[in-house]
Amino acid sequence: MHSKKVAFQGEHGAYSEIAALKVFPDLELIPKKLFQDVFEALNDRTADYAVVPIENSIEGSVNEIYDLLLDTQKKVSGEIFLRINHCLIANFQHTSPITKAYSHSQAIAQCRNYLRNKNLEPIPTYDTAGAVRMIKEKAILDAAGIASRRAAEIYGMEILEDGIEDKKNNFTRFLILSDNETKPTGRDRTSFIFRLQHKPGALFSILREFADRQINLTKIESRPTKEKPWEYYFYVDIEGHCDDINIKEVINSILSRSISLNILGSYKQGTMT
Amino acid sequence: MHSKKVAFQGEHGAYSEIAALKVFPDLELIPKKLFQDVFEALNDRTADYAVVPIENSIEGSVNEIYDLLLDTQKKVSGEIFLRINHCLIANFQHTSPITKAYSHSQAIAQCRNYLRNKNLEPIPTYDTAGAVRMIKEKAILDAAGIASRRAAEIYGMEILEDGIEDKKNNFTRFLILSDNETKPTGRDRTSFIFRLQHKPGALFSILREFADRQINLTKIESRPTKEKPWEYYFYVDIEGHCDDINIKEVINSILSRSISLNILGSYKQGTMT
Repeated sequence: MHSKKVAFQGEHGAYSEIAALKVFPDLELIPKKLFQDVFEALNDRTADYAVVPIENSIEGSVNEIYDLLLDTQKKVSGEIFLRINHCLIANFQHTSPITKAYSHSQAIAQCRNYLRNKNLEPIPTYDTAGAVRMIKEKAILDAAGIASRRAAEIYGMEILEDGIEDKKNNFTRFLILSDNETKPTGRDRTSFIFRLQHKPGALFSILREFADRQINLTKIESRPTKEKPWEYYFYVDIEGHCDDINIKEVINSILSRSISLNILGSYKQGTMT
Repeated sequence: MHSKKVAFQGEHGAYSEIAALKVFPDLELIPKKLFQDVFEALNDRTADYAVVPIENSIEGSVNEIYDLLLDTQKKVSGEIFLRINHCLIANFQHTSPITKAYSHSQAIAQCRNYLRNKNLEPIPTYDTAGAVRMIKEKAILDAAGIASRRAAEIYGMEILEDGIEDKKNNFTRFLILSDNETKPTGRDRTSFIFRLQHKPGALFSILREFADRQINLTKIESRPTKEKPWEYYFYVDIEGHCDDINIKEVINSILSRSISLNILGSYKQGTMT
């Protein structure tokens, strides 16, 4: 029997893996080095689902995911909110005191005050769990990594301190990608992408369509078209399902005013617990 | 005599340093590890100017700079456009063939097709010029770095190939920060930040102010407030100078509709040469 698989970016212990476990506790989780590898795993069907971070409440949008969404044929079929809880993690045989902290630059930025107070020199790496694994494999004793509790458990390391992030309202929103289209639940969100002609007031005329229908826009993001410098795709999240009548209306009106329109999917809104 | 100093993020050979040299060829250039260090150098007056990347035509906005702009007392006093030209750089004694390529994940993404065609395994690091320096210092012979021509020259390395980026319309826009306020030149841009109440149509009502006055909005970006998850600051660039009458009008109308408004500065528009 084919066991379903979920692809995520990072090493085992990554926050994406923790998010995936909230929804798919019994499926096989496949780590991938790059976000692009995650999308390729979906396309070549070595994975049935992908869980990818789209936005963090402190750091904002994950640009690369927005770009990859533009080209995917898959649907957004769900969202997951995860509270980000950073731990300071070292080898059990570490020196005292520790003098350095390795982690992804975003995690470093989120623990900036803590690191300053503890006089820890921040050293940026490309991944949080990867920093912990590196400290383990190279048997580095005067440094710690900043990553999840799960990373410490997986690599058999000591948690020196838990909850070292400067701000506690640190959540990441993840999207679930798959072949599935979802039915309305009464509390849905719809995500889509449109490209406008480069002229004054073009964006304004689209936002008017939402405002006129009292549709709540929960996020707007712009990304470069990559074809012509400083021209953009706009990504919009709204409350509602694309089977709803007023959402169908607004989609039709945007279709007639935009160069392109891509509906990424409608899905049940996640909860921040 | 005090020689004026310009702070930038990255190692010598970074693209930010190349941008700074276009405007300040005779000043002392000070490398800083983190963007935050660059802003601190301005604040404690160890630097007179800073040159920071705000947006790339392929990768989009540099989120961290947007956040740092929120808290700075300095003014945006200019912008610089730089064409990004990536080189594959190795030690002169390198093996043949090379099998790996180290660089910042953004540079890797921009050379994705090239790396695939050449069968080079990408390895993400935290900096472009830093990858070249690391390959030099560790005498790694089976790998190359992806960085600027200047990085190869500074570290005495061989350029295996020049112009390996997949798309040639790859420009980065940099901002110059200083204590200076600039006079109107007739071809200016103004940047500002506002925060809106979280209610449907709030952004729409602001964009109407620009549309009604035929003011061209060249960029809109949102960043999390970090106080309340999923509430945003909006960053807007418009054509014109804050001494212009219609710009003064629009600023007044936004003031009355927003929770906060911060004018980052008016400055001469850069040219993409």
